[in-house]
Amino acid sequence: MPSDQQVPSKFSGYAALQKGLEVSKYEYEPGPLQPRDIDIRVTHNGLCHTDIHMTLDDWGVSKFPFIPGHEVVGYVAAKGSEVRHLEVGDRVGYAWIKDSCHGCQNCYTGHENLCLKGYTGLITGGGMGGWQNYMRAPAYFAFKIPDGLDSVSAAPLLCAGVTVYAPLKRLITKPGTRVSVIGIGGLGHLALQFAAALGAEVTAISTSPDKEAEARKFGATNFVVGEEGCKAISGTQDVVINTVSSKNDYEAQMALLRPDGTLCIVGLPVDKITVGVLDVVFNQKKICGSIVGGRSDMAEMLQFAAIKGIKPQCETMPLSQVNEAVQKVLANKARYRIVLVNDS
Amino acid sequence: MPSDQQVPSKFSGYAALQKGLEVSKYEYEPGPLQPRDIDIRVTHNGLCHTDIHMTLDDWGVSKFPFIPGHEVVGYVAAKGSEVRHLEVGDRVGYAWIKDSCHGCQNCYTGHENLCLKGYTGLITGGGMGGWQNYMRAPAYFAFKIPDGLDSVSAAPLLCAGVTVYAPLKRLITKPGTRVSVIGIGGLGHLALQFAAALGAEVTAISTSPDKEAEARKFGATNFVVGEEGCKAISGTQDVVINTVSSKNDYEAQMALLRPDGTLCIVGLPVDKITVGVLDVVFNQKKICGSIVGGRSDMAEMLQFAAIKGIKPQCETMPLSQVNEAVQKVLANKARYRIVLVNDS
Repeated sequence: MPSDQQVPSKFSGYAALQKGLEVSKYEYEPGPLQPRDIDIRVTHNGLCHTDIHMTLDDWGVSKFPFIPGHEVVGYVAAKGSEVRHLEVGDRVGYAWIKDSCHGCQNCYTGHENLCLKGYTGLITGGGMGGWQNYMRAPAYFAFKIPDGLDSVSAAPLLCAGVTVYAPLKRLITKPGTRVSVIGIGGLGHLALQFAAALGAEVTAISTSPDKEAEARKFGATNFVVGEEGCKAISGTQDVVINTVSSKNDYEAQMALLRPDGTLCIVGLPVDKITVGVLDVVFNQKKICGSIVGGRSDMAEMLQFAAIKGIKPQCETMPLSQVNEAVQKVLANKARYRIVLVNDS
Repeated sequence: MPSDQQVPSKFSGYAALQKGLEVSKYEYEPGPLQPRDIDIRVTHNGLCHTDIHMTLDDWGVSKFPFIPGHEVVGYVAAKGSEVRHLEVGDRVGYAWIKDSCHGCQNCYTGHENLCLKGYTGLITGGGMGGWQNYMRAPAYFAFKIPDGLDSVSAAPLLCAGVTVYAPLKRLITKPGTRVSVIGIGGLGHLALQFAAALGAEVTAISTSPDKEAEARKFGATNFVVGEEGCKAISGTQDVVINTVSSKNDYEAQMALLRPDGTLCIVGLPVDKITVGVLDVVFNQKKICGSIVGGRSDMAEMLQFAAIKGIKPQCETMPLSQVNEAVQKVLANKARYRIVLVNDS
């Protein structure tokens, strides 16, 4: 039986036809399957704020029409003749990166997110992401989902999960590393869990006192609110991971660090970092950014999440209600992550 | 024979009696030798700009009178009863740090420069540094000078050397790491040599075109002048080490980096670092500071310099002409480092 027997010749989903919030039903023919591509029968999509940035063309890299969705889970429905690491029927995830140069030092070492030629985004430049019944994409950036991880939980891990896992893995260099997580939302609630599982002593920093119980459930042993709370832990932290996408007082965040500590930024505010040189030099402090992860981080993160029972807190909505789901995210009513379930 | 037989009861040197550039002849009694102290018969001192900052009380930590000098080389002339790792007659170096808590995680791991209780500076708070005939200090921060290293060369390595060695050792993570050194002066000319010996591909960035030949001699395979020159290497460097003590355009320096690259600051300008968040996050760039080094770095650096023939380019002046030497440094006429030789 040919491996693509059940795949329809037309794919259908929800596309952004022009700049704006609304997506609309959309059908197209993907054409013949290439030797190194797969078709995925999509079952789930995490809804990430980046999808909204993309439909609004906030970063000037969108090309319409395109289908959003970059936290995609489904089953391999067909594979090209050269695809060796996946079989039809495998449950796989697909995330932000669709392709890279495969020939630079960063690609060689599993850091395709830092490809020196620049990677290709799944939904940039008119790409077709996961908000559809089937999705075609290069096989090399599909990841097998471990059996221990349900598909709803796996979806947000593919972007939000790896975004916090990759830097935490690098920065938690010893048991008991003191990690503070700023912002207990979609990224932050996963950062708390990963940091705790990686052996850190975890502090949650929030503006919402009502998040304390949940933050502790996610792994925080300390919960701090606002400026006053931060003063109490001044100069004590090895790592501060900032998951906030709004403007920040970076100098105040640096003040939380011990000598040799690191402030890691994973949000994407259009903002400047301004900090004093003397604090950085005399205390050997570090500032870094982190952007998703390479294939090595991704595979490792999925496995680690499965072993440790790390799961995003999700609510599900049917894919057909994606426009309502977007409104819910914009109203800040998603706690912590919406997963769209295919219902067509 | 008692180990301190030849040590005079009075030490004499050149002290800063009050805030200002001038130092004056000064005598004092060091009192009885404590069990964990040594007396060093001083032979050489590197003259570092920090000594001048200290006599001018630029950082508000000076207490007068004090004797400057924190790149000290000499011979152990006496040792306290509990000193086990040194013998009378050993040639030793003494640098910026005189003591630390010896009981925090950073001290345990050889990073006393990041002591969580704060280290004690040799010449802060009224300390007596190296510009004298004998110097008394805790034995645990004296370092044996390897035989392959002459005393003139060893002196500047104790501060300028370790200041650039420690971060380069951390940041040169693979053969062929691309390192740019900004500022080819006392620190920079050593950074070029260490980076080359550590296996890097080294670029010198200077404002003085006439330094090219020397920079290449020190190990640079590329020499770049000014804004235009920097543009040509935009986005290519793994590490940029900034040795400049004046104000800087940090955003322009970040632009030199590849994805995953690091800007390391070792100068101490009273300045703010301002860089864009998106460049830091999307390209996973890092900013760090570095301050001298711990005992582990220091011992390793001295040995590495001896093995690899790394030497500062020095001119010597007699200690009795220290005030003239200071004027020469201030006139920017020292190329690259003045070493004061004891002549009394």
